[in-house]
Amino acid sequence: MTIFTSFHPPQRTLMGPGPSDVHPRILQAMSRPTIGHLDPAFIGMMDELKGLLQYAFQTQNALTFAVSAPGSAGMETCFTNLIEPGDTVIVCQNGVFGGRMKENVERCGAMAIMVEDEWGTPVSLDKLADALEIHPEAKAVAFVHAETSTGVQSDAAAIAKLARKHQCLTIMDTVTSLGGTPICMDEWGIDAIYSGSQKCLSCTPGLSPVSFSDKAAQVIQQRQSKVQSWFLDLNLVMGYWGEGAKRAYHHTAPINALYGLHEALVILHEEGLEQAWARHELHHKALKAGLEAMGLTFLVYEAYRLPQLNTVTIPSGIDDATVRSRLLSDYQLEIGAGLGVMAGKVWRIGLMGHSACKKNVLLCLAALDSVLSELGADIKSGVAVAAANKVYADTE
Amino acid sequence: MTIFTSFHPPQRTLMGPGPSDVHPRILQAMSRPTIGHLDPAFIGMMDELKGLLQYAFQTQNALTFAVSAPGSAGMETCFTNLIEPGDTVIVCQNGVFGGRMKENVERCGAMAIMVEDEWGTPVSLDKLADALEIHPEAKAVAFVHAETSTGVQSDAAAIAKLARKHQCLTIMDTVTSLGGTPICMDEWGIDAIYSGSQKCLSCTPGLSPVSFSDKAAQVIQQRQSKVQSWFLDLNLVMGYWGEGAKRAYHHTAPINALYGLHEALVILHEEGLEQAWARHELHHKALKAGLEAMGLTFLVYEAYRLPQLNTVTIPSGIDDATVRSRLLSDYQLEIGAGLGVMAGKVWRIGLMGHSACKKNVLLCLAALDSVLSELGADIKSGVAVAAANKVYADTE
Repeated sequence: MTIFTSFHPPQRTLMGPGPSDVHPRILQAMSRPTIGHLDPAFIGMMDELKGLLQYAFQTQNALTFAVSAPGSAGMETCFTNLIEPGDTVIVCQNGVFGGRMKENVERCGAMAIMVEDEWGTPVSLDKLADALEIHPEAKAVAFVHAETSTGVQSDAAAIAKLARKHQCLTIMDTVTSLGGTPICMDEWGIDAIYSGSQKCLSCTPGLSPVSFSDKAAQVIQQRQSKVQSWFLDLNLVMGYWGEGAKRAYHHTAPINALYGLHEALVILHEEGLEQAWARHELHHKALKAGLEAMGLTFLVYEAYRLPQLNTVTIPSGIDDATVRSRLLSDYQLEIGAGLGVMAGKVWRIGLMGHSACKKNVLLCLAALDSVLSELGADIKSGVAVAAANKVYADTE
Repeated sequence: MTIFTSFHPPQRTLMGPGPSDVHPRILQAMSRPTIGHLDPAFIGMMDELKGLLQYAFQTQNALTFAVSAPGSAGMETCFTNLIEPGDTVIVCQNGVFGGRMKENVERCGAMAIMVEDEWGTPVSLDKLADALEIHPEAKAVAFVHAETSTGVQSDAAAIAKLARKHQCLTIMDTVTSLGGTPICMDEWGIDAIYSGSQKCLSCTPGLSPVSFSDKAAQVIQQRQSKVQSWFLDLNLVMGYWGEGAKRAYHHTAPINALYGLHEALVILHEEGLEQAWARHELHHKALKAGLEAMGLTFLVYEAYRLPQLNTVTIPSGIDDATVRSRLLSDYQLEIGAGLGVMAGKVWRIGLMGHSACKKNVLLCLAALDSVLSELGADIKSGVAVAAANKVYADTE
């Protein structure tokens, strides 16, 4: 008979594209006693969570909550509720996640008009404007604010403005941006937004914060057809997450995971959004100085670079997997591989949430320097840490 | 500015229809350091988890894993993958969850043929046999093994045998049965099964263990149409949960929640399935003796009663909500309300997983006795605990 024993994970430093290092306060919150999903104490916590998410997204939307599943389910919640068979959706793709949006649109029985940009560049406003002119029937524009596959940020305010001009709803992926770079949902006029718990919020993976404008909520209430997913049908979910003391059972909420997300958002609120954005920017600058001093280059043009996700080109002659597995075994350090067409060509170094700190920046630079030197890569060794420290010194 | 602080839940005793009391080892496991979803250490844990789930379901099915969302999403995983537009599915309904199955079937664009039985009774084999005769086009039979809304267990082996005779797949809900009463997936010939983490496994809510027979897996691979949910599409999910060291990213797994489920299953394996079933049976007998001594009656006929979910009729003149809220405030004890047509008429007292213990049985009886007496209910006071203790003494 097989013997099974408790699992004791190693203690890693997480600098990939998420999950990021989880704050100890969050792990502690998740281990508090489970209570019922209709317990008055839990309902009170849900109300607070909603307020905290409104703060994080910078919105007043009543329909703001956390989907009981990972970011991909948050994406599906947006599409499956807003889109009906026969609709047309303009999907901007400049990385992996735009492609996933296309899949979602098509699985809703709708038509996806693709606005494609090269991976590593932002969404082109000109191309989007053209698509909107050619497709006046379009119901929505969907785009990724921060492409996790490339480390590019697109101009969400400008995209939303264009979409509004053509009476289109906007659906925005903020999985990697939430808590790391500015999101101003109401000011920008975004109609539907989804994110993930495990990136710049530094919570464990498994939940997807979402928010819908009143206009979007109305579209959902006035659908001609039923939402194809019972689990994600917001007309039903809102009986549980909606206003008032009388919450109707829809599904059993992931109680302890929600404790964790609540704590993550309390931490973000304590620090302040602007301060969190500035912290991500600072550590990105230090990491960038170190990587560039070493001779590594960024995939993304500086103006569109996400501070929280640094995509660097793998030096020629160096095997991707060898480096990552040596970082993991010798330094307990995880960095991310390239995704899709970028596999084997780039590394994605995350500085997300609790991982965006000086300790991690210096460890990453020192470890990369050591491993690359040992493997005979054509880099300048022994200068990275000093270059990063100079950035820290200059900003003090 | 609103001040937000950490959430400290009260310490409840959970004797509703789930979540049940979570074992401290599980809460501890969930608070261990988060690692990446592609970390070799995590992949190793996933392999073990699969073996543990195979044990719990008593199956050799390769396609056995945990859906990254609650039981309702597990249900949807089964329907959305196995059923295509135009299919016919026979759905046996004898409570709330059969109705949810109907919703799922219809949202897949398929036709649901309902076999309806009174709430509080099991699925009628005769009615099912008739439906199978009348509908030779049926592709699958779906039923609930243990109805969480009523506390009834249906004869899964007999239902599956009937379905097989008519070349139908079987889809079985085991949300409340897994770990509490016998499930022999392979022996019974069940094709698709889903469950929840928060009932007799005593884990936190949020994950749905599932398993599919080879035949079911083949049906999924040979679909004519794409699965309408990208997130739940098993043709994609299996790239991550499948065999071999090379796991492809599909979505970010809920790492720490999976630590918890792993630990819950290790605990079940240590105790042994038969021993866990016997424990649920023992404490049910003690609770039953106490409730009946008090004068309370069960909704369900004894032969079909689930030991882990005891549905008792609310004494006449007694207000449901008053009793439950007093149990919660005075004894930190949660019991469940009636669901659907049973609302206000019954209580559902769970003895699930870690909650199925002598301490909880005696607390529940003593607290119910006190509250009902204070409210002037027509019960026999002061005898329940002794009646339960007699059962314990007799089995020692």
